[in-house]
Amino acid sequence: MATVTELLQPVEQDLETLLSDLRSLIGAGHPILQAAAEHLFSAGGKRLRPGIVLLISRALSANGELTARHRRLAEITEMIHTASLVHDDVVDEASTRRGVATVHSRFNHRVAVLAGDFLFAQASWHLANLDDLEVVKLLSRVIMDLADGEVKQGLFRYDTGQTFATYLEKSYCKTASLIANSAKAAGVLSNESSEHLDSLYHYGRQLGLAFQVVDDILDFTGSDQQLGKPAASDLASGYLTAPALYALEEQPKLAGLIEREFSGDEDLAQALELVRASRAIPRSRELAETFAREAREALAWLPESPSRRALIELPEFVLGRLY
Amino acid sequence: MATVTELLQPVEQDLETLLSDLRSLIGAGHPILQAAAEHLFSAGGKRLRPGIVLLISRALSANGELTARHRRLAEITEMIHTASLVHDDVVDEASTRRGVATVHSRFNHRVAVLAGDFLFAQASWHLANLDDLEVVKLLSRVIMDLADGEVKQGLFRYDTGQTFATYLEKSYCKTASLIANSAKAAGVLSNESSEHLDSLYHYGRQLGLAFQVVDDILDFTGSDQQLGKPAASDLASGYLTAPALYALEEQPKLAGLIEREFSGDEDLAQALELVRASRAIPRSRELAETFAREAREALAWLPESPSRRALIELPEFVLGRLY
Repeated sequence: MATVTELLQPVEQDLETLLSDLRSLIGAGHPILQAAAEHLFSAGGKRLRPGIVLLISRALSANGELTARHRRLAEITEMIHTASLVHDDVVDEASTRRGVATVHSRFNHRVAVLAGDFLFAQASWHLANLDDLEVVKLLSRVIMDLADGEVKQGLFRYDTGQTFATYLEKSYCKTASLIANSAKAAGVLSNESSEHLDSLYHYGRQLGLAFQVVDDILDFTGSDQQLGKPAASDLASGYLTAPALYALEEQPKLAGLIEREFSGDEDLAQALELVRASRAIPRSRELAETFAREAREALAWLPESPSRRALIELPEFVLGRLY
Repeated sequence: MATVTELLQPVEQDLETLLSDLRSLIGAGHPILQAAAEHLFSAGGKRLRPGIVLLISRALSANGELTARHRRLAEITEMIHTASLVHDDVVDEASTRRGVATVHSRFNHRVAVLAGDFLFAQASWHLANLDDLEVVKLLSRVIMDLADGEVKQGLFRYDTGQTFATYLEKSYCKTASLIANSAKAAGVLSNESSEHLDSLYHYGRQLGLAFQVVDDILDFTGSDQQLGKPAASDLASGYLTAPALYALEEQPKLAGLIEREFSGDEDLAQALELVRASRAIPRSRELAETFAREAREALAWLPESPSRRALIELPEFVLGRLY
């Protein structure tokens, strides 16, 4: 099983350049933001999102070289992603993310709002200056989906009546939209046919959904240490993900525990037991596997190259986190 | 002297429609945001910014009618303005604005972050769908200027060494950029010549600067009640505006009071006295008058219409708040 560093090897140098460019772009002349930028663009994030844009860009390039506009698109993708994380951490009152202190807990929520706005603003400015209206539309759709997903997530807390479709829509908005639309945008900048653009979008969408379902499974199966946050924290906060929704179908008793917001001492532990005793985890795994397979199949047409191989292996890598 | 309602009379009905559209756009399906939207788009704001876009759009129209795209531009302008106010109030920890409770004090800072992001996201989505790359660039520049201005404002607190140019740049970013660029964007949608576009931009820029200088004067001359916030609150917070910067040129003692951040009991009162005893207020007034005159002159070429008359009178109205 490849590690993420091995997978991203074809664009390793590109990612280094991108992160150092982002640090200086955001920090330049603004001491308050500089510390936040150092924090955001140095800490151990996997940079999967810009990595995917860069891999697709290289895979689509006849000579394997990246254009300045493809690089800029990857930067914009990372800016939007980071901005939305910083603001979501304020909205969700999260104090750590993957074991690292969030901006609002390390600095304060005022710096977090400012840093997020600054990143969104830079992203929208650079986006406009890519001079491609279709790319502007794709990425502005992402910004809208991210805000929409964050609102939706809050709306359906502890709501045991929500449909599985609602969960998938929220996952699309919060995770898959950015990967899908930025993958397609890389294709737009490479003048791909509309058929290829659709398949790039589909690859990103299914990969993003696989990624989210895997994350949601790990919330139930991982330890605090592996997750960098308390295990089952999604469920405890009332966010009902694939495993919880599948378990609700089998274990009617679970609904009561959720609806009273785990107010009893043993409620959360009991809910976890109900989920684990059900077929929820294996079914969630099957769902993630389906999304991963669909992602892989979407790129069958790509010409052979190291970047293509990495893209095709990525869905498998995402599933690999489960084992 | 006309009231603002009289001035905006040519677009009064348009503004009503715009506000009700914005309320339903933002509130739709999101109970958390609905309350915030009601609060934001009902309270007594003057809606000068979309009003200016609508007046320009009508003034440039051969038949005096508005197109759907001009209306949408006015909406986007108000969304961006409101989003930035909501976030600035979090960053500045303001509990009231013009006497009305801010979103983060009425709800909490999480709702304020969410509501602001949602508005920015809607704005960028609708902006992209105006299908005009030049308009996208103009308004994304505004979003960047707003974030930049907020950062700059924080950077120069209590800094008596800052130049007057820094103050004007900050005022441009925070106030004039939106008016200037949205005025120009209305011209772009009306296919105006680049000469006319420049003069629309100049009108908005000088009007915005006049507006900001007048606001800054009122902070020194208004009562708490008139301002809807404590008088001299800018100075007390370390934000040095035109009157303070002019006074610093005449009253060297003022610098010491500011630099020790008014830590002595009588420091703020003494600083106010020094400003009022100087020529700072009359000089600031002259500055505002110059900006207002330049704004008026920029629109000399506009064909006669009720909307033109309102636009020409607006700078005078802005100054009128001083008397």
